[in-house]
Amino acid sequence: MNVLVTSGGTIEKIDNVRSISNMSTGKLGSTIADSFLSTPKIDKVFYICTKTTVLPTFENAEIIYANSVADLEDAIRELLSHTQIDIIIHCMAVSDYTVKSVTTLSALLEKSANSESSANEKINFDSNANTGGKISSELDDMVLLMERTPKIISLFQKLSPKSTLVGFKLLDNVPLETLIDKGFGVLTKNKCSFVLANDLKDITKDGHIGYLIDKDKNFTKYKTKAEIADAIVSATIQ
Amino acid sequence: MNVLVTSGGTIEKIDNVRSISNMSTGKLGSTIADSFLSTPKIDKVFYICTKTTVLPTFENAEIIYANSVADLEDAIRELLSHTQIDIIIHCMAVSDYTVKSVTTLSALLEKSANSESSANEKINFDSNANTGGKISSELDDMVLLMERTPKIISLFQKLSPKSTLVGFKLLDNVPLETLIDKGFGVLTKNKCSFVLANDLKDITKDGHIGYLIDKDKNFTKYKTKAEIADAIVSATIQ
Repeated sequence: MNVLVTSGGTIEKIDNVRSISNMSTGKLGSTIADSFLSTPKIDKVFYICTKTTVLPTFENAEIIYANSVADLEDAIRELLSHTQIDIIIHCMAVSDYTVKSVTTLSALLEKSANSESSANEKINFDSNANTGGKISSELDDMVLLMERTPKIISLFQKLSPKSTLVGFKLLDNVPLETLIDKGFGVLTKNKCSFVLANDLKDITKDGHIGYLIDKDKNFTKYKTKAEIADAIVSATIQ
Repeated sequence: MNVLVTSGGTIEKIDNVRSISNMSTGKLGSTIADSFLSTPKIDKVFYICTKTTVLPTFENAEIIYANSVADLEDAIRELLSHTQIDIIIHCMAVSDYTVKSVTTLSALLEKSANSESSANEKINFDSNANTGGKISSELDDMVLLMERTPKIISLFQKLSPKSTLVGFKLLDNVPLETLIDKGFGVLTKNKCSFVLANDLKDITKDGHIGYLIDKDKNFTKYKTKAEIADAIVSATIQ
C-alpha cells in the first residue's frame, strides 16, 4: 500500500524577499508519516512539504518539496499521474488566498474612482507580485490584493477517487459542536473517509486534541499527536 | 566587549494561523555571531532572532527571541536599557510594513465611496488583525492593508550612540553602483560605522557576495558568508 501525506504550511510569495505563510510546523504530519512507516503493510510513504517543514524520522519516506499552493497542485498531479496511492492524508495547511497584486491605498482608490465599475464589481490590477524584484521599502503604505486559491482537497476525488482520503479542519476557539459540524462539512463536500477536526486552542506544547470524524458523523477524541497518528493509521489500513 | 547580532527575518501576524515573513534563514547572522564568539576579546554575544532562525553553533551566545518588528523593538530597548553593547550587527531582515487591517475589495471600495475623504486621504479601517481569531476561508478575496513599521536601525543611534553599528542593505538585481550608493545612504542616515550591501542575485548555495562599505564610501568585496563575517569582526574590533 502507498500513502501520501501532505504536511506543513504553504508559502505564497509577495516578492523575492517577502512571503505569506500558513503557520504549521509539520509535527503532526511527520508523526502520522512515521506511524505509517512503522507499519509492515505500507510499501511507501510520499511526504509533500516545504523546506521548513518537520520531516519524518524514518528515512525511507520519499520527500517531495512544494512551497506555494500552485507548487502543491503540480506535485499532487504529477505524483498521482504515475503512482497508485491507497491512502491520502491531507494534513497540510493550505493558503486560501494567493497574492494577486501589490499596490498602495491611494493608487487603489484612485484606480477605483477612475473606473466605471461600481464598488462591487471586480477591478483588475496589473500583478507585480511573483514576477520577481523586491517591492520598495519606501511606500507610505502597502496594500496586498489577494485572490482565492483552488481547493486542493477537491483534487483528490477527481484524480484518485479510490483512495481513502483523510481531510483536516482547523478552527480557532469554537464550540465543539461547531468544530464537528464544520469538520463533517469538509468530509461530505470532498468525499473524505475521515476528517480530523481540531481547534487552535487545544494545540499546546504538551498536547494536541483532535476529533476523528467518520462518514456517519461519529467521532472519537484523541489527546496527543501520537494518538491522532495511530488512530488515523488504524482507521485507514483495512 | 559585548556584541549584539540581530538575525533572521521578522514575522508579522495576519491572524492566528497566517503571517508575513521576511525570508532570511539567519545563516549569515549566525556565521557572524560565531566569528565573534571565536574571538578572545569578546565577552558576550547577544543574538536576537525568531524561532525559525539558524542559531550560532557556539553555545555561549545569549539567544533572545523576537518575532514581529514590535517584539524586536521591545527586545532591543530592554537589552540596551541595562547592558552596554560595544558592537551592533543589525543583520535581521526587518519588515517595512505591518498588517493594519484585513478586509475585502468590495468592503474597501464601498467604505471609500461612502467616505468624504478623497482618494489620497487616509482612510481608517477597524483593525481585525493581530486581535486573534482566524480569518474566514470563505471570503471572495482578501485585502491586507499594511502600514509602515518604525525604522529599527534608527533606534541604535538614539539608545546606544557610542556603539559601533553595522547596517545591512539588501537589494535585488541592481547595478553595483546603485548597491553601493544605497548602502552608503543607509550608513549616513543611521550613523553606521559600516554597511554590508548585498544583492539577492549574488546569494547562492555556494557563495554570498557582499560589499563592506566604510564611512569614506570605500568598499571591499567578499565572496562567502565566512569571509563577510571575518571582515565584519576585523573591522569592528579595534
